Amino acid sequence: MSAAPPPRRLRNDRLLRALARRPVDRAPVWIMRQAGRYLPEYRRVRAAAGSFMALCTDPERACEVTLQPLRRFGLDAAILFSDILTIPDAMGLGLYFVEGEGPRFERPLRDAAAITALPVPDPEDRLRYVLDAVRLIRRELGDDLPLIGFAGSPWTLATYMVEGGASRDFVHAKRLIYDAPGLAHTLLEKLSAALVEYLAAQAAAGADALMLFDTWGGVLDPAAWRDFSLAYLRRIAQALATRAPGVPLILFGKGAHPEQLAELADTGAAALGVDWTVPLDTARRATGDRVALQGNLDPAVLHASPAVIEQAVARVLADYGHGHGHVFNLGHGIQPSVDPEHVSVMVEAVRRLSPTYKSAPPSPD
Amino acid sequence: MSAAPPPRRLRNDRLLRALARRPVDRAPVWIMRQAGRYLPEYRRVRAAAGSFMALCTDPERACEVTLQPLRRFGLDAAILFSDILTIPDAMGLGLYFVEGEGPRFERPLRDAAAITALPVPDPEDRLRYVLDAVRLIRRELGDDLPLIGFAGSPWTLATYMVEGGASRDFVHAKRLIYDAPGLAHTLLEKLSAALVEYLAAQAAAGADALMLFDTWGGVLDPAAWRDFSLAYLRRIAQALATRAPGVPLILFGKGAHPEQLAELADTGAAALGVDWTVPLDTARRATGDRVALQGNLDPAVLHASPAVIEQAVARVLADYGHGHGHVFNLGHGIQPSVDPEHVSVMVEAVRRLSPTYKSAPPSPD
Repeated sequence: MSAAPPPRRLRNDRLLRALARRPVDRAPVWIMRQAGRYLPEYRRVRAAAGSFMALCTDPERACEVTLQPLRRFGLDAAILFSDILTIPDAMGLGLYFVEGEGPRFERPLRDAAAITALPVPDPEDRLRYVLDAVRLIRRELGDDLPLIGFAGSPWTLATYMVEGGASRDFVHAKRLIYDAPGLAHTLLEKLSAALVEYLAAQAAAGADALMLFDTWGGVLDPAAWRDFSLAYLRRIAQALATRAPGVPLILFGKGAHPEQLAELADTGAAALGVDWTVPLDTARRATGDRVALQGNLDPAVLHASPAVIEQAVARVLADYGHGHGHVFNLGHGIQPSVDPEHVSVMVEAVRRLSPTYKSAPPSPD
Repeated sequence: MSAAPPPRRLRNDRLLRALARRPVDRAPVWIMRQAGRYLPEYRRVRAAAGSFMALCTDPERACEVTLQPLRRFGLDAAILFSDILTIPDAMGLGLYFVEGEGPRFERPLRDAAAITALPVPDPEDRLRYVLDAVRLIRRELGDDLPLIGFAGSPWTLATYMVEGGASRDFVHAKRLIYDAPGLAHTLLEKLSAALVEYLAAQAAAGADALMLFDTWGGVLDPAAWRDFSLAYLRRIAQALATRAPGVPLILFGKGAHPEQLAELADTGAAALGVDWTVPLDTARRATGDRVALQGNLDPAVLHASPAVIEQAVARVLADYGHGHGHVFNLGHGIQPSVDPEHVSVMVEAVRRLSPTYKSAPPSPD
């Protein structure tokens, strides 16, 4: 058991205030995958590391690339540089990456024996490199900015573990839940237990907020989603309320329809990530201000001209409207081919256009 | 101008009755991609043809594979075997297929000159092979079953034409609509004009119903979807009301949220295809019975055991509930790895379980 650290006083606490739906001078802004391939300085560190996994498992380099976007842009949060598949790797599946094709496992889950034999890893043992990175980043950030820790949702991790990598049709993962639901629940329970330990350990190591990515919940029909994804998101949110008290949780359900956002809002999470297909006014109506909302510019807009980016930012801000529970972000991860100058345009537009929707006095920055 | 043929009297008119929301003894059932790779008899004809394009452009073989699933299963409609990319090919882009990787164009649209130079093809010239297939299938079907003609939506075709093939992030297509909206509208207008001619010609050649696939509308934010996809679906639906009177149109908006289904219901289409992520009771509430609904079993369920398939069919039927405007189908195309025996289980379950939701006397079959 690891206890959450005492609350930190941060010079820029916009993110934590917005996640608690408390007054802010403007919407905080950060970017999913902000430490990534669109930055030339990232590509240099990645090349020096030799491989993506070598970069992930090297706390010094993971810290360095985590800090890079903060130096370029006026962002309001750092997010740990890591990968959602560190957990299955720590469970023994043997993660590796094929250039241009994404993640693979040496030992995907192909039978009941492999699932029942899966260990729940101790994060300070098999995932110490992640926690060392969190501690290092926390020290480097000082009292300036909050640090977000993260993990993949049980269902999302299960799809990769059962398929052996990325998938388009999710045939193996869906056959598991439809034909062997008991076994599917065994796998999802183990993943949930591992994720609670992992996220609580990230909070203990210095993460100020936590985010769970349910990237593939949207490929399930809503009834299956409720049984095989939502139920475990709720279980993790409730466990973290005890294991990491005071550390807000953001749930990102990519592809979630408004009805599903309403269900996610009742899990105990502080905030929901919203992809770009649900306008924030619709999302806000669906969730009735029970949670903060994070999002949701279409990442492809960052390929457009500065004037178009500014208009699109203005519309996202107007869609959320007046109130304090909005964290500006993209609706999905930033694409590697984006020009970093366009990111500056977006961030500056948020800084300039957001205050009109807030009524609190400016906070020191 | 081609006039629609006089209405045919069909021995099995369940599909046409359900599309008109008139009484049926049970829900009609057909399967998106029912003529396809999951059938060994299809694979034999495909192999003999030499390539996918050779199969598409050979009316005799296209007719043969169209009829194959009707011989195996008790389906209530035939659907033309063809591809949505025949239109861009007829516009001069040079369609070809890379084994295992999908469609490609020799000459993707990369600049304004290429878009303004695009011709609107005369279907009886450049697409005669499709219309010959329709005429042949119509003759083979006699008075037994309705034939569905189809095409891709303007936005969906535009994505392939601009990207040069399939895409994951749609960077080029989205840059076009965001940075050069006027040029995007020029392209979408040409595609709409071509599609009206093409679909009207399919109806004149013998198609009893028409379907438009907006496969990639769901990757747009709802405001962009309204401007760059919905507007053209509406335009085509309204033109076809004159050009192919009495021939019902089915719009399939993959990834459409309930709010978007409501907008699609006001285009003048007779029916909407619904993917498996929106339960049919939700879709029916959203569209207020202004249209018939087609769908929406998760295609992955066909990999499960017969008992699970039957339960899933029962739930789709119960979700739609009592009433006559339901066409049973999958929520997307059937997957190549499905066992045809499982398709029989699904079709038999629809035949057995559907009548309880209908009150009309049995029609002759």
